[in-house]
Amino acid sequence: MTDNQSFKYENLFASRVPGPQPFSDLVREKYDFAVAYPDPATLPLVEMADLLKDALREEGRDLAVYPNLQGYPPLREFLAQKLAKERGIEITPDEIMLADGSSQPLHMLTEALVDPGDVVFVEDFVYAGTLGTFNRFGADIRGVMCDDQGILPDSLESGIQEAIKSGKQPKIIYTIPTFQNPQGWTMTVDRRKELIRLSMKYGIPIMEDDCYVDLRYDGENVPSIHSLDDSGSVMYVGSFSKIIAPGIRLGYMTASPEVMDRIRPLKSGGGVSQFTSLAVHRYSTTKLDEHITAMGSVLRAKRDAMLAALGENFGSAASWSRPEGALYIWLRLPEGADFELMLPASLEAQVGYGPGPRFSPDGVSGKNYARLCFGYNTTEEIHEGISRLAEVCDKAGMLKG
Amino acid sequence: MTDNQSFKYENLFASRVPGPQPFSDLVREKYDFAVAYPDPATLPLVEMADLLKDALREEGRDLAVYPNLQGYPPLREFLAQKLAKERGIEITPDEIMLADGSSQPLHMLTEALVDPGDVVFVEDFVYAGTLGTFNRFGADIRGVMCDDQGILPDSLESGIQEAIKSGKQPKIIYTIPTFQNPQGWTMTVDRRKELIRLSMKYGIPIMEDDCYVDLRYDGENVPSIHSLDDSGSVMYVGSFSKIIAPGIRLGYMTASPEVMDRIRPLKSGGGVSQFTSLAVHRYSTTKLDEHITAMGSVLRAKRDAMLAALGENFGSAASWSRPEGALYIWLRLPEGADFELMLPASLEAQVGYGPGPRFSPDGVSGKNYARLCFGYNTTEEIHEGISRLAEVCDKAGMLKG
Repeated sequence: MTDNQSFKYENLFASRVPGPQPFSDLVREKYDFAVAYPDPATLPLVEMADLLKDALREEGRDLAVYPNLQGYPPLREFLAQKLAKERGIEITPDEIMLADGSSQPLHMLTEALVDPGDVVFVEDFVYAGTLGTFNRFGADIRGVMCDDQGILPDSLESGIQEAIKSGKQPKIIYTIPTFQNPQGWTMTVDRRKELIRLSMKYGIPIMEDDCYVDLRYDGENVPSIHSLDDSGSVMYVGSFSKIIAPGIRLGYMTASPEVMDRIRPLKSGGGVSQFTSLAVHRYSTTKLDEHITAMGSVLRAKRDAMLAALGENFGSAASWSRPEGALYIWLRLPEGADFELMLPASLEAQVGYGPGPRFSPDGVSGKNYARLCFGYNTTEEIHEGISRLAEVCDKAGMLKG
Repeated sequence: MTDNQSFKYENLFASRVPGPQPFSDLVREKYDFAVAYPDPATLPLVEMADLLKDALREEGRDLAVYPNLQGYPPLREFLAQKLAKERGIEITPDEIMLADGSSQPLHMLTEALVDPGDVVFVEDFVYAGTLGTFNRFGADIRGVMCDDQGILPDSLESGIQEAIKSGKQPKIIYTIPTFQNPQGWTMTVDRRKELIRLSMKYGIPIMEDDCYVDLRYDGENVPSIHSLDDSGSVMYVGSFSKIIAPGIRLGYMTASPEVMDRIRPLKSGGGVSQFTSLAVHRYSTTKLDEHITAMGSVLRAKRDAMLAALGENFGSAASWSRPEGALYIWLRLPEGADFELMLPASLEAQVGYGPGPRFSPDGVSGKNYARLCFGYNTTEEIHEGISRLAEVCDKAGMLKG
């Protein structure tokens, strides 16, 4: 392509298209605590390729045909059973849509409900990907205060009332109730019920993001919000990214039939890759449970390594979450500390992390927080990386309250 | 899910969301001439699974990481070389985005450019999928007259002038210039140049859909429109659906950097499945050319079988295209014939086809046309199916001019 392109697009773009986003390559540090990756050594991919080969011998001819828009039916059947057994969600396979990771379902649900300026509620610190999607659709994102039991119902209700008073009907209450990303707590059953009560009272659907629920290392399973509701107000999203691999891009959603009817025309690209789906289906129906158990021990050890390393290197100069599952710890330094400011020095030391403001609805709060992911590196690397991070913080004078 | 769901969504949906679309299962006929499927017996999938296994041994760890938003870099590198060699398109791999089939690129380009009411130009009969996408974004779709050399420039120019006169800046000229779907002609170089001239003169980008170009059985390659333009006005879309399999959901696009910058934030679901991409990359770099040649002989034979069957069964009572490639023949009955009306009787005879109006911008023109796809069935089935179709037409009294 020549540099002197003369054709101008500037007046042709649609009114709601987001601003330009330049090309970027992934930059990763040796001590990569920035992104919630699973353990790369235990990905079951070669096994999956073997199962895929058998599956293709059996039904590869069907790949000459376009996949069902909601995805490979046997995999939806498997998910309906898994969700019933483990999450108390009683639905038929036809109420499930497979999609590209969990991000495509979150994208479609947002697109279905949010006009520019519409209010959505999120936890005070929450998954940056969903914040990006809300921003892309012009949502007015409002954070709700949380404690270690989950969203504070009073804070949510006063936020709702404020929005309604200003003439705005809120569109979504978004929550990651299990091993909240990045805060790590799991919402109690009582709080989940409170959330449903407020959802019903004010007519605001709940978007429940349960992507990490399979990665529990301690404590007891807590019922999904979806299972506690029979009104249809809960839209539920899950994923194979964390239990098989992010690179397979396979997630799913279910919602009230009224919502599913509106989601179908939003699915771009047709039904998800049947090639990937066949592999995931054969693996899921034979070996997934076993894999989750084995992977759980590896990840528990990594979590414990990071908790130990934090204790050794930060002592009482900081505090952090002790999550019962998932892939990250939420680190808090004294007020005045600034993880954005420290990032260049940390990258210099080959340590990556997620500064608090990336998880904040306003994009600026939480400078003294960072999310540290422990899934990717070995326990030795975790120890070394946390030691380096503490040194960076100390040198920056950020460990004094 | 209970039937008595009390939560009401009706006032919550965003203003631009399309109407409800119910769940549907794919219904297929024995003589399935309705959809442009490739030959199911020659899909190279088991071979691909073998290559995938090796690839996963080499770089499966990388699937723990989220794929590059534009897709697996080595596969983009392969495509850059293929496009340079075969289509005269000189671009870098970073100017290519992989996506879910060709439908996701077409979706994103439309979303980037089209506001409700915006005018887009298409060939007088054209791929129903793109018509659906244009409709979903509220485009004002206008058909342009074509002959067997492609779009008629005068018809396009007068359409453009009419739109501009009514105060509307047209946003897209969409074309399938090679083995036009469904009409089968290939646009001449002169017409392609005319299209670029009009694109430049009126500032309307061209969306070139080249999904079938690899399936040439006769005649000479014609340069892509993209290769004839150095202004950046051409957005180019291609796919592996027809040369590997639709079920893998892998396509790609390239466009001016200005457009690519706006497309990136529209990509939902992150970078495409690295699992599928690894398989396609390893296969493409070793065996794809050979496969395309082999598949070409099979498909040529099927095309010839359908042409012969049409001659035997319809004789001079109908006329039809004689395409040099791709997967479909465009059948024309005398004026007054109605393929929509005949569809139930045809399905009763287990013969599926695409009635003309499905390919028409207005959704009603072309009742005496049907698209007949020859990729899926065996040559024996093609003969039997066409014979049955002729019988249905004859019984309906549609063969008399």
